[in-house]
Amino acid sequence: MQFTGANILSVNQFDADAITQVFTIADKMQPYAHRKKRTRVLDGAILGNLFFEPSTRTRVSFGTAFNLLGGEVRETTGMESSAIAKGESLYDTARVLSSYSDIIAMRHPKAGSVAEFAEGSRVPVINGGDGANEHPTQALLDLYTIKKELEHHQLSVDGMHICMMGDLKYGRTVHSLSKLLAMYKNVHFTLISPRELCMPEDILGLLDSAGHRVTVTERIEGSMDADIVYQTRIQQERFASLQDADQYRGKFRLNHEIYTKHYKPNTVIMHPLPRDSRAEANELDNDLNQNPNLAIFRQADNGVLIRMALFALTLGVDHLLEKYETDVVWHSEKANI
Amino acid sequence: MQFTGANILSVNQFDADAITQVFTIADKMQPYAHRKKRTRVLDGAILGNLFFEPSTRTRVSFGTAFNLLGGEVRETTGMESSAIAKGESLYDTARVLSSYSDIIAMRHPKAGSVAEFAEGSRVPVINGGDGANEHPTQALLDLYTIKKELEHHQLSVDGMHICMMGDLKYGRTVHSLSKLLAMYKNVHFTLISPRELCMPEDILGLLDSAGHRVTVTERIEGSMDADIVYQTRIQQERFASLQDADQYRGKFRLNHEIYTKHYKPNTVIMHPLPRDSRAEANELDNDLNQNPNLAIFRQADNGVLIRMALFALTLGVDHLLEKYETDVVWHSEKANI
Amino acid sequence: MQFTGANILSVNQFDADAITQVFTIADKMQPYAHRKKRTRVLDGAILGNLFFEPSTRTRVSFGTAFNLLGGEVRETTGMESSAIAKGESLYDTARVLSSYSDIIAMRHPKAGSVAEFAEGSRVPVINGGDGANEHPTQALLDLYTIKKELEHHQLSVDGMHICMMGDLKYGRTVHSLSKLLAMYKNVHFTLISPRELCMPEDILGLLDSAGHRVTVTERIEGSMDADIVYQTRIQQERFASLQDADQYRGKFRLNHEIYTKHYKPNTVIMHPLPRDSRAEANELDNDLNQNPNLAIFRQADNGVLIRMALFALTLGVDHLLEKYETDVVWHSEKANI
Repeated sequence: MQFTGANILSVNQFDADAITQVFTIADKMQPYAHRKKRTRVLDGAILGNLFFEPSTRTRVSFGTAFNLLGGEVRETTGMESSAIAKGESLYDTARVLSSYSDIIAMRHPKAGSVAEFAEGSRVPVINGGDGANEHPTQALLDLYTIKKELEHHQLSVDGMHICMMGDLKYGRTVHSLSKLLAMYKNVHFTLISPRELCMPEDILGLLDSAGHRVTVTERIEGSMDADIVYQTRIQQERFASLQDADQYRGKFRLNHEIYTKHYKPNTVIMHPLPRDSRAEANELDNDLNQNPNLAIFRQADNGVLIRMALFALTLGVDHLLEKYETDVVWHSEKANI
Repeated sequence: MQFTGANILSVNQFDADAITQVFTIADKMQPYAHRKKRTRVLDGAILGNLFFEPSTRTRVSFGTAFNLLGGEVRETTGMESSAIAKGESLYDTARVLSSYSDIIAMRHPKAGSVAEFAEGSRVPVINGGDGANEHPTQALLDLYTIKKELEHHQLSVDGMHICMMGDLKYGRTVHSLSKLLAMYKNVHFTLISPRELCMPEDILGLLDSAGHRVTVTERIEGSMDADIVYQTRIQQERFASLQDADQYRGKFRLNHEIYTKHYKPNTVIMHPLPRDSRAEANELDNDLNQNPNLAIFRQADNGVLIRMALFALTLGVDHLLEKYETDVVWHSEKANI
Repeated sequence: MQFTGANILSVNQFDADAITQVFTIADKMQPYAHRKKRTRVLDGAILGNLFFEPSTRTRVSFGTAFNLLGGEVRETTGMESSAIAKGESLYDTARVLSSYSDIIAMRHPKAGSVAEFAEGSRVPVINGGDGANEHPTQALLDLYTIKKELEHHQLSVDGMHICMMGDLKYGRTVHSLSKLLAMYKNVHFTLISPRELCMPEDILGLLDSAGHRVTVTERIEGSMDADIVYQTRIQQERFASLQDADQYRGKFRLNHEIYTKHYKPNTVIMHPLPRDSRAEANELDNDLNQNPNLAIFRQADNGVLIRMALFALTLGVDHLLEKYETDVVWHSEKANI
């Protein structure tokens, strides 16, 4: 894959080599993200951070990643008052706004809209989520996290066992992650969801034809023997009736008791965030906050590294990071933590 | 005209010399805007980008122009929750907010509000549109575009023929552009609009007393022999009745068929944007998108150059651009376009 | 007090030494804020400017202060669409967003929320106002202004006479300021408010036990002989009935006539801003705008200095300001003012 000048629209663009390339550059970003050193390689470049649908953490993560490389950020949030609402085409919006920046990160509620925008854009476009369709940087940061967490336990993605639990039908993140994982070898997928919300057939077919072992179930039972548990939200409105929803309430929850009973002591816990940690949400409870295997905040941290890597690659400066290094003279560690 | 430290509130401030000065500096901005070189002349300066009325493209254009000169941008959008809504005077707002930046770009829905704000401001204020009143940077970018497009065809503003079509009564942009064009010689204006929406008398008087030829009409007929066609939107709500609106529907539209029938093969097509390109809008159709004479996106590009020039002139750094030049090390061209 | 890495959550953290330290650094910030010189000491650092409740002037003041030290700003405004609204805990939000910046300035409508957020944050957090609870940078800028204004008249905080007028019950700023002033010697407080809106007992107790003279009254009478008059807003909805409100209307107003009649010719006039300067507001009138003792805009200016000082101290770069100095090459003074 040729990164320089490319749009990043879908996980389908990535083969094993491209993923290795992104992860290698992401590794190089660690000292900059952790404030050991600075790089000003993109000093003077401008990111157009176009969030036609609000998403605080994804928006700020893209902006921070660009700032950490030395660049500037121009933003727009929401679209109530934008020209699009007055009948402007995405083509026109793209032609105009793409002349205001060197690269664009874009989120939009409509599936396919980011690709449509990219056709009119004069600069590379990175998909920050287009409705139910794709969110490739989330999938890449999830895979990067899995790889790092497993390496920490002297394991690898090849041969691992991952449990995905919750709404596997509408959960965009588990679909994209599954596509990326399909490129690895001998992965065991255990897919735990209500029957109404099970993994779509096309994903199951992809995993099957790639030779992975897939177990589909409606409940956690006995020892899951999993290396990773990837928890997602189940939204009540996905069920036909409140009765259906009530029937499943709590069966797809993860908390300290359930984790201890069904998982290994070092099974890594992931979630795409934000999580609803209120007790009545039955999702992923706060009583796991002190568990060292809870990787959900490391996922968010890794998102910055992945986005930095994609910016550096698409703008063709991944080999120039060290050349523009400077020292960090301030201290951002908390004194009392 | 003395630019350093001046507010830019109205096109009436500009004489021929001032326009020449702005356009000369705008020409110098091309290599920076096109990423051939960088200048950090405003490194450390802060733009207060105060959009009390949302306008994504104008806001981002001002911000980008300031970033391209090396400066930082602090922004505010909308005013629902601002102090103004709690009874604060524009004078107070100006006194406070103007101490947070080196220069201000401001849009506000109320005519005259930007000038009122400028009286309280301690730093120069550039009007980014104050209701029905003025939008001087739009008029300057329109004039700059006309000059550049005509030069491309070995023509000049003196002696040209421009058709303005659509709502000429409420269209702020055509009024301001007409005032600027009045300073040139022997321009032929053809003004095409429904009778209810014709050009105001004061503008007609100005053009007449400056010796220009003005043709007023309600329809396009035969060969228009125009060098420029400047299309604007007609909003249905401007008519007394739906019947009146229906009567005119489609008569002030520009599309491939109408263009080919009535205009010369190289007549330049302009529009202040955003355009409603939905078929039912009857405004400026997408079937002209591939026509090389469609200058609407070049207008938007030129807006950045004009705003960069005004920032450099009002902050007194127009002679220092080259001194703070650095190289551009990234590549923002799309690989596949 | 150890500043490096510390959260700034409450005025209660500050002793006399800490205040001296902040004010000494604030003094050093004057040439940077007044554009005589620049410092790039925080070049590459990122401020997370998290305003979960909108406040244009406080938000922009924090952002500008960080830019003036050379840093970048990533912002969020409002919380309707944020993850918090979807059930995310402040702990989760803090863990995620704090990995996107080097320091955080935060405003939130709920009392105690900023301290709660700070517990989850990995970087220092500065409280930009948490509901009715605290707004420590406002209190510090108020105290800094009092000190500077009095020094201008060869007076000091010790031994001064301050009148506080208006809503002293719900006015967060007068509570915090009183706590800071309590650390000085022999201050005379005259507290003028309707009985329903008088200063809370705990503040009165604090001032009394620190040996200050406190006069409580419901009206201005005769010569007030004050060095400072600190005016706050009375909101009609604070009264039990419209009749009660009407009874007090205008009795806690400050305008030219009242000032001349009751105060000394050089009594300094302060207000936390924004003020409602409409005539019917009966608050602080525009007819005092030309009075040189009106310090309300100098308060806002000083806010930038105080915030710069707190950023430099918490990030441990207060001793490096001069090392990263550069020249200012642009001119931001207005030509005609």
